[in-house]
Amino acid sequence: MTRNHAPKSLAVLLRARMHPDALPSPPPQPPSPPPPPTDPAASPTAAAAVRHWLHTSASAASPPPAALDSFSDGYRSLDRGGRREVLRSLAADYDVPRARVRDLMRQYMSVASASAAMGGDDAEAEEGKEGAAAALYRMERGLRDALRPRYAGFLEAMNAQPGGLKLLAVLRADLLALLGEENVPALRALDSYLKEKLVTWLSPAALTLHQITWDDPASLLEKIVAYEAVHPIRNLIDLKRRLGVGCRCFGYFHPAIPGEPLIFIEVALHKDMAASIQEVLWDDPPTPESEASCALFYSISSTQPGLSGINLGKFLLKRVIDMLRRDMPSVQIFATLSPIPGFMQWLRAKLASQIKLAETESQEGDSLEGASSTFRESILLADEEKMIHDAIEHAHGKQGIELLQDILKTSQWVNSDKLSAALKSPLMRLCARYLAGEKIRGKALDAVANFHLQNGAMIERINWMADQSEKGIQQSGGIMVNYLCRLEKIEEYALSYSGTGLIHSSPSISQYLEVTAIIE
Amino acid sequence: MTRNHAPKSLAVLLRARMHPDALPSPPPQPPSPPPPPTDPAASPTAAAAVRHWLHTSASAASPPPAALDSFSDGYRSLDRGGRREVLRSLAADYDVPRARVRDLMRQYMSVASASAAMGGDDAEAEEGKEGAAAALYRMERGLRDALRPRYAGFLEAMNAQPGGLKLLAVLRADLLALLGEENVPALRALDSYLKEKLVTWLSPAALTLHQITWDDPASLLEKIVAYEAVHPIRNLIDLKRRLGVGCRCFGYFHPAIPGEPLIFIEVALHKDMAASIQEVLWDDPPTPESEASCALFYSISSTQPGLSGINLGKFLLKRVIDMLRRDMPSVQIFATLSPIPGFMQWLRAKLASQIKLAETESQEGDSLEGASSTFRESILLADEEKMIHDAIEHAHGKQGIELLQDILKTSQWVNSDKLSAALKSPLMRLCARYLAGEKIRGKALDAVANFHLQNGAMIERINWMADQSEKGIQQSGGIMVNYLCRLEKIEEYALSYSGTGLIHSSPSISQYLEVTAIIE
Repeated sequence: MTRNHAPKSLAVLLRARMHPDALPSPPPQPPSPPPPPTDPAASPTAAAAVRHWLHTSASAASPPPAALDSFSDGYRSLDRGGRREVLRSLAADYDVPRARVRDLMRQYMSVASASAAMGGDDAEAEEGKEGAAAALYRMERGLRDALRPRYAGFLEAMNAQPGGLKLLAVLRADLLALLGEENVPALRALDSYLKEKLVTWLSPAALTLHQITWDDPASLLEKIVAYEAVHPIRNLIDLKRRLGVGCRCFGYFHPAIPGEPLIFIEVALHKDMAASIQEVLWDDPPTPESEASCALFYSISSTQPGLSGINLGKFLLKRVIDMLRRDMPSVQIFATLSPIPGFMQWLRAKLASQIKLAETESQEGDSLEGASSTFRESILLADEEKMIHDAIEHAHGKQGIELLQDILKTSQWVNSDKLSAALKSPLMRLCARYLAGEKIRGKALDAVANFHLQNGAMIERINWMADQSEKGIQQSGGIMVNYLCRLEKIEEYALSYSGTGLIHSSPSISQYLEVTAIIE
Repeated sequence: MTRNHAPKSLAVLLRARMHPDALPSPPPQPPSPPPPPTDPAASPTAAAAVRHWLHTSASAASPPPAALDSFSDGYRSLDRGGRREVLRSLAADYDVPRARVRDLMRQYMSVASASAAMGGDDAEAEEGKEGAAAALYRMERGLRDALRPRYAGFLEAMNAQPGGLKLLAVLRADLLALLGEENVPALRALDSYLKEKLVTWLSPAALTLHQITWDDPASLLEKIVAYEAVHPIRNLIDLKRRLGVGCRCFGYFHPAIPGEPLIFIEVALHKDMAASIQEVLWDDPPTPESEASCALFYSISSTQPGLSGINLGKFLLKRVIDMLRRDMPSVQIFATLSPIPGFMQWLRAKLASQIKLAETESQEGDSLEGASSTFRESILLADEEKMIHDAIEHAHGKQGIELLQDILKTSQWVNSDKLSAALKSPLMRLCARYLAGEKIRGKALDAVANFHLQNGAMIERINWMADQSEKGIQQSGGIMVNYLCRLEKIEEYALSYSGTGLIHSSPSISQYLEVTAIIE
């Protein structure tokens, strides 16, 4: 996969470290004596016991709650290997009943053609038609049922069980990890089915929007600190500021997972669209709320790795914007200040491949001229190359792209005014190109860009030295981007992006792209 | 339909009068001049406009929120005829795409048989098998999608919309009313699909249990008063008592329908299992909670006619019992004091048919002896018949069943000690027979009995003069029943009832049945 970060929307924002519930660390194994056989997690038959509860639950028309609870407890106590064994069994042993599907299909085809052939328009024929229609509907319902994998009933009963939704999220997180190593059709089908069900269960209608404040229980605030994935919360004062005057934090809660948002978003109220995370998080004092005209969304974090690919953020953003418009009519600008998680990774790969191509060309001399140079790109403009050369004391006759590659190996360059000045112009230009021009499967390559564009935002502005944290420099050379939600255009933009991949951007972004286009 | 009250579980408990949202009273139509054409509800094209929004929503891959809102507003303002036009269009014009289903089935059958025929066990064959398996899963998913009616996406998008779930409940209430008059396959299929989706969306995982108290907003308490369907709340003092010491009221809430329980249950905490609604609602003072050992569920009411047949009560009861067990360990008995809504209706029908049979026999004399008498039953025992005769001043040579029919025409008999005493024995015996012996499609004929039996309760006791309200006398001759939840038996009883229709009852109930069996 070209795109190293997870394929869809918010995945990149999810914390890499797994949630405590997702997988316990392996139980401590003293070298001797061997673990007591009564410890279910250590017992070699632990997975078999869990599969027994799976079997009991999945074979019953309405799975007994006690069996579902035993499955949950057992599954949680399993180690990685045990969990994988259970997942493989779930996918393979409780699959679609294919023989039954084929039988029902044959019946359906014959009824469907008989019904089509039925003629006449007298009362009797009318009655016959109605009978045939009723039969068709009945068989279609039967087929829909038969085409559901046999684990469908188990998953549904588990969801209805207290704590079941959370267990299913854990199970899907494990499944995604397993799919990373063992991408087989049955597991893919299980993931796809479970995801489909989770989308239904986590419909925005079932979620409650709650403004998280300093008055909320510590057990909830603790979760905000643990799961803030974009700009880590450093201490209680930092947290208090993010929940205080000029700021808002909203979470989406599901009744089955109380006291823990599934996803939350942080907003700062400013006079203008902020250009750096420093002014949002650390510059004192906050803007008086009566003077605010811009709501800046600067962080959105999901707490459940198992809900990856389920776009809760879209609905959360929409509801928060609606609420702010109602409560604060003076706020007219709705924008984000967002990271660009894939920029440097993309640039480093680009530099490496171009340097390699250049080497090959120079080794092969003129003999193959034109053959590989069709893949060559001009990454740097002439004056950009010159500025980089001028900023370096010992260039050793290296080319601009080689120097750039060297410089970007560490984050040291930000400490040198000369280097920073030399890099600003090429990095900003290349960043605009990366955001607005680089695509995968017709959509923006950058996962955060793709998320905001599919929600109908546009790329408004990129900002130099906007995130000077080590992570910010490493990810995106410190550049951050403002996506702008033009409320009257949201649906139009979302539609054209999802249809044709059209990325809307402001004139300032387009200017960068024009320069890029000219030199290529 | 033999069973006049609605077919499943709680329907009988629903208020007959429709919820304000369900259907507006027809707009006042002045005889002249004709209504202004700008009034959408009165305009003949109002339904057409709503159908336009339906078309816009149902044809898009992701229906535009604005179109869904326009549909909702338009639908709510339609009169009965307009709504029915829209419902018919929804069912017929956005049906299962049958041509596509047949195409996909043909493809599936060929792939499925090719995959089955595939032999060999070398690496290449293995790869081929995996490819074929992947194709099967893909096609099964495609078929599942194609077998969904085309209104599926519309219903799902509507559910995700603010206020959408409520609109869908209104729509289903209208659909159920329409089906009562126009029971055609397409409408039945729409109802069945919508019900299936509502069951998913209203999974207990998405519902919040809330104890309703006197501290709750008046807007919520007002709903309790409006929707209490079993024992109407007479005034604020009555309401306050039901929420005060010795009482509990719990509601199930869904985030999409805030401030209004979907269903609520009222509980009284007593020393013993109460035998009349008078002692629950009116006898002072309430039992001190520390002395309570019985939680008596005396009322369960649903607020949404459109959720008929969706068994929310089962989960609500279970959660309330769990909560009470945790909070009040001294409470050991969990029982109901329930109405018997169908008893008198059943008895009157029984009496009428037996009197008719008797008349026919006496007219035809001995010529057909034995032919119709096979349908005759002994409704009254000899000494019951005698007691009734003795209690009546002018029997006019009528038979016991005729006298009983006359007496039961009004509720006057409760005012006569003599009549009451004469009726107690036959009515109690016949009531036990009705509850524990009369079935429809293998399940208890009485809807409330069916509800509690399917949840795993047993019939414990019937109580004479337990509800002396006019409604109580009319419905069940004033008799009420205690269903008992024996916690250790709930699952066993629920299973045997759902499997074989076995009705568990106490020895006192069985005794009544034995007498009945002997005389028949």
